[in-house]
Amino acid sequence: MNAELLAQFRALLGEERARADADTLALYASDETPRSCPPLAVLFPVSHDQVAAIVRLALAHRLPLVARGAGSGNVGGAMPVPGSVVVSFECMNQVLEFDPVNRLIVVQTGVITDEIDRIARSAGLMYAPDPGSGAYSRIGGNLAMNAAGPRCVKYGATRDHVLGLRAVAGDGRELKTGSRTSKYATAFDLSRLLVGSEGALALITEATLRLVPAPETVATLRVCYGSNAAACAAVQRIMAQPVTPCALEFMDRRSLSAIREYGGAEGLPAGTEAVLMVEADGAREDVPRQIAALEAALHGDGLLEIQSGFDKAAIVRLWTARKSLSMAVKKIAPRKINEDVVVPIGRLADLVHAIDGLGERYRVPIVSFGHAGNGNLHVNIMVHEDDSEEMARAGACRDALIDVVLSLGGSLSGEHGIGSEKRRYVARELTPETLGFMYDLKRLFDPAGILNPGKKLPD
Amino acid sequence: MNAELLAQFRALLGEERARADADTLALYASDETPRSCPPLAVLFPVSHDQVAAIVRLALAHRLPLVARGAGSGNVGGAMPVPGSVVVSFECMNQVLEFDPVNRLIVVQTGVITDEIDRIARSAGLMYAPDPGSGAYSRIGGNLAMNAAGPRCVKYGATRDHVLGLRAVAGDGRELKTGSRTSKYATAFDLSRLLVGSEGALALITEATLRLVPAPETVATLRVCYGSNAAACAAVQRIMAQPVTPCALEFMDRRSLSAIREYGGAEGLPAGTEAVLMVEADGAREDVPRQIAALEAALHGDGLLEIQSGFDKAAIVRLWTARKSLSMAVKKIAPRKINEDVVVPIGRLADLVHAIDGLGERYRVPIVSFGHAGNGNLHVNIMVHEDDSEEMARAGACRDALIDVVLSLGGSLSGEHGIGSEKRRYVARELTPETLGFMYDLKRLFDPAGILNPGKKLPD
Repeated sequence: MNAELLAQFRALLGEERARADADTLALYASDETPRSCPPLAVLFPVSHDQVAAIVRLALAHRLPLVARGAGSGNVGGAMPVPGSVVVSFECMNQVLEFDPVNRLIVVQTGVITDEIDRIARSAGLMYAPDPGSGAYSRIGGNLAMNAAGPRCVKYGATRDHVLGLRAVAGDGRELKTGSRTSKYATAFDLSRLLVGSEGALALITEATLRLVPAPETVATLRVCYGSNAAACAAVQRIMAQPVTPCALEFMDRRSLSAIREYGGAEGLPAGTEAVLMVEADGAREDVPRQIAALEAALHGDGLLEIQSGFDKAAIVRLWTARKSLSMAVKKIAPRKINEDVVVPIGRLADLVHAIDGLGERYRVPIVSFGHAGNGNLHVNIMVHEDDSEEMARAGACRDALIDVVLSLGGSLSGEHGIGSEKRRYVARELTPETLGFMYDLKRLFDPAGILNPGKKLPD
Repeated sequence: MNAELLAQFRALLGEERARADADTLALYASDETPRSCPPLAVLFPVSHDQVAAIVRLALAHRLPLVARGAGSGNVGGAMPVPGSVVVSFECMNQVLEFDPVNRLIVVQTGVITDEIDRIARSAGLMYAPDPGSGAYSRIGGNLAMNAAGPRCVKYGATRDHVLGLRAVAGDGRELKTGSRTSKYATAFDLSRLLVGSEGALALITEATLRLVPAPETVATLRVCYGSNAAACAAVQRIMAQPVTPCALEFMDRRSLSAIREYGGAEGLPAGTEAVLMVEADGAREDVPRQIAALEAALHGDGLLEIQSGFDKAAIVRLWTARKSLSMAVKKIAPRKINEDVVVPIGRLADLVHAIDGLGERYRVPIVSFGHAGNGNLHVNIMVHEDDSEEMARAGACRDALIDVVLSLGGSLSGEHGIGSEKRRYVARELTPETLGFMYDLKRLFDPAGILNPGKKLPD
């Protein structure tokens, strides 16, 4: 980047907090998306005011800014675009206030997601959203994408746990949204407009998050079925009865084989084609009743086995295996095209059945797993990037998958967002009018188009 | 209204659905706000398309439109402004789809709130938000104001139960927001931007609402304290332990005296200065444990009595009394200035204490009751409209109350919204920048300013 501008950023942030050396640029050239584009510089602000100053300077120079939490997203949300500067929030990691009486916490948005939960637990509370990346993802990235996770089937996604935000819009104006109260009907809901806006409207610097009582205990079931259809039918039965589990995860046969060496698929009965991981949480006295209700709903055609009574260590192993899936599938082929589709629960079986058909038709291995209780599947089309014929088939398969999801009343993304990778599909789902309002909002908050250009919205 | 324009509305809607006779105009001249302003006409559309046609015709004539559900709001949200036309949604009362498998219902926005709950219960589900006006309020009004109610301490407000909307913006563009899925990370969150926007951005015509499992049973406690402070301390203890009640209502001494003849304050022990109504819901086997935990938290200084074991009829009587309060307080003085303030739970005792002081200082009777578990109090300053000296004191008292609430980290409105009645205070709470974004959003959705002018936003 031009030395004068870099010097100005250094004057704002300090010498060490505005970097343009080759190592740093290479390190921040991508997120978990399998492509890269080195930025012109990487900035490491430590405060809201520094972020505001960055936006204003960038605005004056029409310099694109790409906000970055941990870079753990996989849709290119934090991937630089040509000529852009990365604003890394990793040094904005201060907990500004923990207020257990009012069940809230105020954090800078570079705080690590699980750290928020850890602090909450010290006072018997919990930060409910639990993305698979929680151990390293930063809350700002969770807010930008409206991240979720297994617990969200019971507790809702990131959006449902935000009381208020501080942010800097693309036009340099500073925003303070929401309140510290659990009910609020005063302003327009600017908080939720920013949550899920993928760094394209404003840079979120601070968040006031809602905490909930931590459950006393959690119990886990591993449930094996002879077919995907049988597992999907069980998911529908679970969600049709009153006990909402705090996790209802689905893994297909290929997922199970991928995690075998992680210890997550030990002792599966012969003929297992799909596994559900089901959890209930709550008071110690109440969880057994919940588990009994869930077990009753899990029974049905194709059930092979319900395993329960796992000890803590075994539960950790199961979840480690489940959470390793995102990486473990790469054993099947070096690259995955990962779709994060979501359908109404009643159509989950149709989706899984259609995916089988697509895999056969396009001759690509597809690995599906995810948050079945929300109808949210991670569908991984496994490919070899150097095989252009296979890549073409995989692309066509992905394209057909999107059409299937939309025909089932579903949506492109349940929790990963759109980023650069899925925006070509957005116009298939949204009406032109609704898309028009999104462009209008983008222009309102970021008239110069400096915030994460080429993301979220189609061209 | 000008005969030609009326004829055009009649051509759109049918003869009977565009009225300008004196009786109709008088009937729609106000909502529950103690002021009135007859509209030029009242329109009764039956479909989204008719609403879209109304907005376009109104836009061509720069004619202000005031959306109206049941007219049960008390901040002037549905009160006509001079030269305006009321769009009544009462004929848009169709349930378009009830889908228990996917735990959702799609309704036109003129459907009565409790009717949605009644339908949900037929399949073991519940529509959780339960405003006191639910028996007659229409869901469109609930959406416009982000209405809540007692159950919202556990289940969240209207905003938390919206999956998607259809609407017509002030510029005539039609919007379709959200999805039918329980997770969603595709578009900007336009749904929640419209919820709570008080008919000033768009007219909401259809809503896809999230339903939750209905609890098997509910148990109710009536708890008497010797002082407001003791009751507030108990509220704080309740919200600091893990069992979240499904209602935590507060009534001060004057409230109790107002409902005495409704049967809601029978057999209170001598010295009762404040009552909490506390409920727990859930599975039959689990509610006793919850009640035991709540009772333990209710114990403390100033506790006079915990009554439990009410039968169904007694519970209905208690709630009828509680819900009659809004009207019953009028026994104390003919008019109430009703504030719907909300503070963080930890500041509730400070608020109640400050209100006592304000009542003394300004020599006005103040009746406070409300959803204490959310820190949301309905503070009623009782006045005689023809006593100008008293009215001046009451006005000053209200003004001071707002400052107290804001100094406690609270907000102007927890669930009633801003309307015409509170907009003068909005700039005290919101930063100029945040307010600027609200004006910008208003201009984006309603550039001609025809939707509910003079509401929500200060001039």
